[in-house]
Amino acid sequence: MKIPLPPWLLLDDLLKNWLLEDIGRGDRATQGLFNDLTPEGKGQWIAKAEGIVAGLPIAGRVFYHLNPQTQFTPLIVEGEKCENGQAIARIEGKMDSLLMGERVALNIAMHLSGIATSTRLYVDAIGDLPTHFVDTRKTIPGLRILEKYATEVGGGQNHRMGLDDTVMIKDNHIQAAGGITEAVTRIREVIPYPLTIEVETGNMEEVKTAIEQDINIIMLDNMSIAEMTEAVKMIRVSGKNLKIEASGNITLESIRKIAETGVDYISSSAPVTRSKWLDISMKLKNN
Amino acid sequence: MKIPLPPWLLLDDLLKNWLLEDIGRGDRATQGLFNDLTPEGKGQWIAKAEGIVAGLPIAGRVFYHLNPQTQFTPLIVEGEKCENGQAIARIEGKMDSLLMGERVALNIAMHLSGIATSTRLYVDAIGDLPTHFVDTRKTIPGLRILEKYATEVGGGQNHRMGLDDTVMIKDNHIQAAGGITEAVTRIREVIPYPLTIEVETGNMEEVKTAIEQDINIIMLDNMSIAEMTEAVKMIRVSGKNLKIEASGNITLESIRKIAETGVDYISSSAPVTRSKWLDISMKLKNN
Amino acid sequence: MKIPLPPWLLLDDLLKNWLLEDIGRGDRATQGLFNDLTPEGKGQWIAKAEGIVAGLPIAGRVFYHLNPQTQFTPLIVEGEKCENGQAIARIEGKMDSLLMGERVALNIAMHLSGIATSTRLYVDAIGDLPTHFVDTRKTIPGLRILEKYATEVGGGQNHRMGLDDTVMIKDNHIQAAGGITEAVTRIREVIPYPLTIEVETGNMEEVKTAIEQDINIIMLDNMSIAEMTEAVKMIRVSGKNLKIEASGNITLESIRKIAETGVDYISSSAPVTRSKWLDISMKLKNN
Amino acid sequence: MKIPLPPWLLLDDLLKNWLLEDIGRGDRATQGLFNDLTPEGKGQWIAKAEGIVAGLPIAGRVFYHLNPQTQFTPLIVEGEKCENGQAIARIEGKMDSLLMGERVALNIAMHLSGIATSTRLYVDAIGDLPTHFVDTRKTIPGLRILEKYATEVGGGQNHRMGLDDTVMIKDNHIQAAGGITEAVTRIREVIPYPLTIEVETGNMEEVKTAIEQDINIIMLDNMSIAEMTEAVKMIRVSGKNLKIEASGNITLESIRKIAETGVDYISSSAPVTRSKWLDISMKLKNN
Amino acid sequence: MKIPLPPWLLLDDLLKNWLLEDIGRGDRATQGLFNDLTPEGKGQWIAKAEGIVAGLPIAGRVFYHLNPQTQFTPLIVEGEKCENGQAIARIEGKMDSLLMGERVALNIAMHLSGIATSTRLYVDAIGDLPTHFVDTRKTIPGLRILEKYATEVGGGQNHRMGLDDTVMIKDNHIQAAGGITEAVTRIREVIPYPLTIEVETGNMEEVKTAIEQDINIIMLDNMSIAEMTEAVKMIRVSGKNLKIEASGNITLESIRKIAETGVDYISSSAPVTRSKWLDISMKLKNN
Amino acid sequence: MKIPLPPWLLLDDLLKNWLLEDIGRGDRATQGLFNDLTPEGKGQWIAKAEGIVAGLPIAGRVFYHLNPQTQFTPLIVEGEKCENGQAIARIEGKMDSLLMGERVALNIAMHLSGIATSTRLYVDAIGDLPTHFVDTRKTIPGLRILEKYATEVGGGQNHRMGLDDTVMIKDNHIQAAGGITEAVTRIREVIPYPLTIEVETGNMEEVKTAIEQDINIIMLDNMSIAEMTEAVKMIRVSGKNLKIEASGNITLESIRKIAETGVDYISSSAPVTRSKWLDISMKLKNN
Repeated sequence: MKIPLPPWLLLDDLLKNWLLEDIGRGDRATQGLFNDLTPEGKGQWIAKAEGIVAGLPIAGRVFYHLNPQTQFTPLIVEGEKCENGQAIARIEGKMDSLLMGERVALNIAMHLSGIATSTRLYVDAIGDLPTHFVDTRKTIPGLRILEKYATEVGGGQNHRMGLDDTVMIKDNHIQAAGGITEAVTRIREVIPYPLTIEVETGNMEEVKTAIEQDINIIMLDNMSIAEMTEAVKMIRVSGKNLKIEASGNITLESIRKIAETGVDYISSSAPVTRSKWLDISMKLKNN
Repeated sequence: MKIPLPPWLLLDDLLKNWLLEDIGRGDRATQGLFNDLTPEGKGQWIAKAEGIVAGLPIAGRVFYHLNPQTQFTPLIVEGEKCENGQAIARIEGKMDSLLMGERVALNIAMHLSGIATSTRLYVDAIGDLPTHFVDTRKTIPGLRILEKYATEVGGGQNHRMGLDDTVMIKDNHIQAAGGITEAVTRIREVIPYPLTIEVETGNMEEVKTAIEQDINIIMLDNMSIAEMTEAVKMIRVSGKNLKIEASGNITLESIRKIAETGVDYISSSAPVTRSKWLDISMKLKNN
Repeated sequence: MKIPLPPWLLLDDLLKNWLLEDIGRGDRATQGLFNDLTPEGKGQWIAKAEGIVAGLPIAGRVFYHLNPQTQFTPLIVEGEKCENGQAIARIEGKMDSLLMGERVALNIAMHLSGIATSTRLYVDAIGDLPTHFVDTRKTIPGLRILEKYATEVGGGQNHRMGLDDTVMIKDNHIQAAGGITEAVTRIREVIPYPLTIEVETGNMEEVKTAIEQDINIIMLDNMSIAEMTEAVKMIRVSGKNLKIEASGNITLESIRKIAETGVDYISSSAPVTRSKWLDISMKLKNN
Repeated sequence: MKIPLPPWLLLDDLLKNWLLEDIGRGDRATQGLFNDLTPEGKGQWIAKAEGIVAGLPIAGRVFYHLNPQTQFTPLIVEGEKCENGQAIARIEGKMDSLLMGERVALNIAMHLSGIATSTRLYVDAIGDLPTHFVDTRKTIPGLRILEKYATEVGGGQNHRMGLDDTVMIKDNHIQAAGGITEAVTRIREVIPYPLTIEVETGNMEEVKTAIEQDINIIMLDNMSIAEMTEAVKMIRVSGKNLKIEASGNITLESIRKIAETGVDYISSSAPVTRSKWLDISMKLKNN
Repeated sequence: MKIPLPPWLLLDDLLKNWLLEDIGRGDRATQGLFNDLTPEGKGQWIAKAEGIVAGLPIAGRVFYHLNPQTQFTPLIVEGEKCENGQAIARIEGKMDSLLMGERVALNIAMHLSGIATSTRLYVDAIGDLPTHFVDTRKTIPGLRILEKYATEVGGGQNHRMGLDDTVMIKDNHIQAAGGITEAVTRIREVIPYPLTIEVETGNMEEVKTAIEQDINIIMLDNMSIAEMTEAVKMIRVSGKNLKIEASGNITLESIRKIAETGVDYISSSAPVTRSKWLDISMKLKNN
Repeated sequence: MKIPLPPWLLLDDLLKNWLLEDIGRGDRATQGLFNDLTPEGKGQWIAKAEGIVAGLPIAGRVFYHLNPQTQFTPLIVEGEKCENGQAIARIEGKMDSLLMGERVALNIAMHLSGIATSTRLYVDAIGDLPTHFVDTRKTIPGLRILEKYATEVGGGQNHRMGLDDTVMIKDNHIQAAGGITEAVTRIREVIPYPLTIEVETGNMEEVKTAIEQDINIIMLDNMSIAEMTEAVKMIRVSGKNLKIEASGNITLESIRKIAETGVDYISSSAPVTRSKWLDISMKLKNN
């Protein structure tokens, strides 16, 4: 399965700002060296560790913004595993653009590949079960769309993208409204009608109340395996068309047990908050 | 030592964009619940693990952009160690702003605290030696200033902020120029005169050539302890006023040995590329 | 029911751009007259026709951006009916800001009130039936959030806000995918899991196929009353938890008959594409 | 007569923002379907009603921003009348760009064509008289330039574009200054010398005073036909080189009578505030 | 006469960008010194030469954007003459904001005061004659509004602000259209009706043709005193209500002779293109 | 020596804003004349005075943003001397773009050439001495990068680009810190380690103290020739690797004497604050 990239129109200003952040008032070394007689150069991107590659098309677009003539060609499909030492992309173009864009392009690809690599571990741990691994809103500010893209490249599925495309009712909302019923009623009335509502529950009592509402998803938050098993059962027998999500302290050790409770989705921020970058380096030579 | 925050003027648009990224076309749950009768609420930020706290003033400014009346009061000084379970900030204001800003504010503080926490480990490992621990340009695109702020909060020092405030001459520059001497000469001629030049070297031959140039810093890149020891000696005896930086595959295991070679600075991206977020949660109650 | 306003953070840049569009390089008359000795003034907004008022808080925020001291006080609740000649807001502040913001503030309030007024007619026509009146993506470019706010103020409900918060599969998607089943399958795989999918159908055959998919909403597009009646029946007996939306050439004459077929939602762009502004004028006097 | 389009430099950011408003975090249906294997498609824009077409070049530019390879070819000249069912444009390009830009492109063209269609009615009503039909500053915020373009396409002429290119002295200015003479004097002193000044008058007394000022245009605001006739006469006999504009409650019924009083210009916002969109649809097929 | 300032809404983004240009990634000296314990400071702005002061309110607004609490109080009215050594403003606030904004605030005030000072010389040279001194579109890119404000502060009047508020028909337009008559006719047809048209003429033949058009201003470009005298006479006897502007190589030596030909306006870019900054310095002391 | 241009990525938004500033809501003359049938035109840029040309590539990029097909070809290398009457660039393209971009392109090139021309005079005055002529932070807000580029084109060298790439400790910093030693210590601790620190001194006492700090540059501010001579001697004999800069009231008359004191750098804002534009005009003809 190929993961769709967001349209460049959504990303181009972001990418330009990344370059401006690094370049500041000018790349003093590169500009000083090449001036307007900059030679052609070419090179490769080499993975320095095994992992799942994500973000090469984004990296290519970074170079494009410095010089539309730059050729950046991924040698591996997004989501495939690379070996340590493997050439994963070829690059060719004016040396000044290659050097000026190198750090930004690597930074984003290394970070996204790190997320994809970590995601794959969680996904594979439950790969034979019907449960899906999904992400969260714990993302680096400014990188939401791309980190969620990396989740998908890693084999996970996305949860909601922001506060506006799905309603998640949490304990603070419930407390403020004076109860689950009141919260759901008030919110349902003023949201676009196709939106789904998810309610966070922490015990059987809350699960029971949630089942009776006009909602779509029930989250089992930080429950024990036993509680989850019971909650899943209670929800299924209700005959309501409800999806079930487990959340809270998901680890590579615990994820399989949780999946076996029969929940539909397990959400975790671990691939974003606890992964390390995949090491990649750029090797250039002048033509 | 108190680490200076960048002026808000530099950060405000960034922070607003973070909020817009998460809010999208509106926080459907919060707006639906409270409308314009939103109650006052208050709460605390609780650390869920031991670590070094960084970014609380940034988090506070995030809430400010939703409602300038929100009071966000850090209970711990940037750079101090928090315990698991410790209250690290107090917050008070309109419930809608508290809920709408929660995720973004936590995301940045958790990420920056993770960097500071990791940095502190490296810094402490060589705390009794004169060598300084410094960061790199491997930063998440869009967060350069703040991640480098977290480095300082963690006890490290910053390396250059971008391509424009210091010149770093790498192998590709040298190759393109036809030698270290040519590269330094051409670049020195067209840069602001107060800028310093650093040259990357990989062996004794290059160190020797570098010493003879009009430069300020020599980087020993990926050298063995033996090589570094020799290089430091060669540079010191030259009598040139040169700073020495070691770089490449720095780990908590190797850093002390490297510092003992007598280099002035050890640079590493590990706190950014291999750290995990410090877990923090926000506990709210309605007034 | 009070309709929640979007957070100002989402609107402020838009509102400032509106003012800049009108002011250009300066309000030559007002600046020339008052300079920095501008007197206080006050006045009223008077409705010049009967209608449903929407957008007064937005108008007030327009004046705020010229001068935060300006007091703009709505005298009528959003969504209430005003009479011709009724004072609907009071304004007080520096004369230059009042005059400089007048046109922009009136333009938006008159336009939004026009939409709310028209929406109310459609809503009232089916007010005793369980069917909901909803809007569409036919909105003036740049005003999506506000025109949808006006729909709600008028008593309607919103359909999706954009291409990202709900999936609508149309004939071109189906044709490109090679069938409804293929289209739904491919799309379901790569979207955030809480998103709902709506499929557009034009005849019984398509309705039948749609029922069998993993979708949430079926749109009956431009069907006759007889067809719609049959389609609603077929969908209800399927026992699938599906919402039904009717669309296409909805008029004040036809809407009741369509609602009586038992569809859940009737969507129409008429209040946006075929309404006229509600006339409002501002009467000022110097203090 | 061909109406000049504004340079794209003035419109491009606006058009991109329109697309971003609709696309949000991505076109989930289109991206999910086509990914990077998107097929070529082509189609037509079909008018669904008789009217005056305006905005096709703008619509074409919308598609351009999604994919510069898209070919959008108007089949009718801006300002010409289309029949119901007539193909007014041909489009060819990648299916994803066609589907992603469809709504925004249609929205603007339908709205502008609605304005042009309505304008033409007013213009034709006085087509054999020397009086010109002109627009006002009552425009949808953000669309000033384009709605005024549509006025011209419909056969009308533009009044001032904003607060800075012409001075319009209204009753509030006059009251604040303490009289017409004071207002004109103070303003004339500090405006660019080529700017014209228009004074709003509501009775013969004001007309008389206005004639004596250093101004260029006299507006007769909401006067009766008899008053206007008298005012025109008074102004003409003054021998002053003054243009005369009638304004206030212009309708298709009243416009001819007003023109016959001999005024030079009749201004009305009706084509913007009381028109409906011209219905247009896009018919696509995959190649 | 007090010169009206543009609304801050028009200038605020510009001013912030100026500060960001200078501050870059942070004011290393000031932030390093004061951190968040910054003391209060106060001081004065001292003129280091005699001249006409312009731009103090702009300078004050620069400091406001760093810290709204900063008090910047002009001690001299815009347009008044200052002596060498005179205190022209008082400033008080946090030391970090004072130091961080100093250079930007001084740069703009010194530049604008330089323009005002130079303008005053030209204005005074013809102060007893009815001819007005006006500026041109030769302005530093990005500073048009402010440099034209400085012209007015110096006692001059503004010519058009840009390409859109007045039509200036030059030789290239005339050549392209095939003659003055054709150019005026084509342009008059598609511009907002209140706009004025100016035609550039270089000899008597062109002046004669220009008189016959539907235009408002005739520019005599680079003519000799004798030619100008003749042209003014020809235009006046035409009885047409035309303004006359002289342009081209205006100097302090030549301006009076030109004014004596009876032209209404003399336009010159000299105060912008050939003036020097008025020297001003900021003297601070810690509280 | 060829001076490197900043990457277009750093300048493009600036250049577009310049065009928008001049064009406003449209170039009424040009759009009115040519519409979409605009002919090809070509022409030349002619220097109207002797001077050093700078900014032609920037001017070319201005036209590019109106129409990427425009050909703008410099006929002289940046930094070369042009004669009065010399053709310095050739231009060819659509007439509307040529006319619409003319003023902005000329304004920037004339201003930058004025700076380069003035700079060359200062540089040549000390051309046979080892002292370098450098610029300052006194630049027109918004033009920092480009004015500093012009300095280099004129033969000067740049001083720091902003508050972040070099630390300059001035009297106010020293006073606030309680002495030079305290100021340097506090700042050195929190700045990126490669940054250099310059200390401003006004007398021998301060020079002496400065020599003892961990700094890189000593500025001799407004000293007499005798004092400077003494200070240079004191600094050289210290054996510290310090650069020496002279500053304050540098004129073409005084600069040589100052250079002969042996300072390394002489900084002056004169080419920015006291130069006049180099006169250039554009001569077009239709094809």
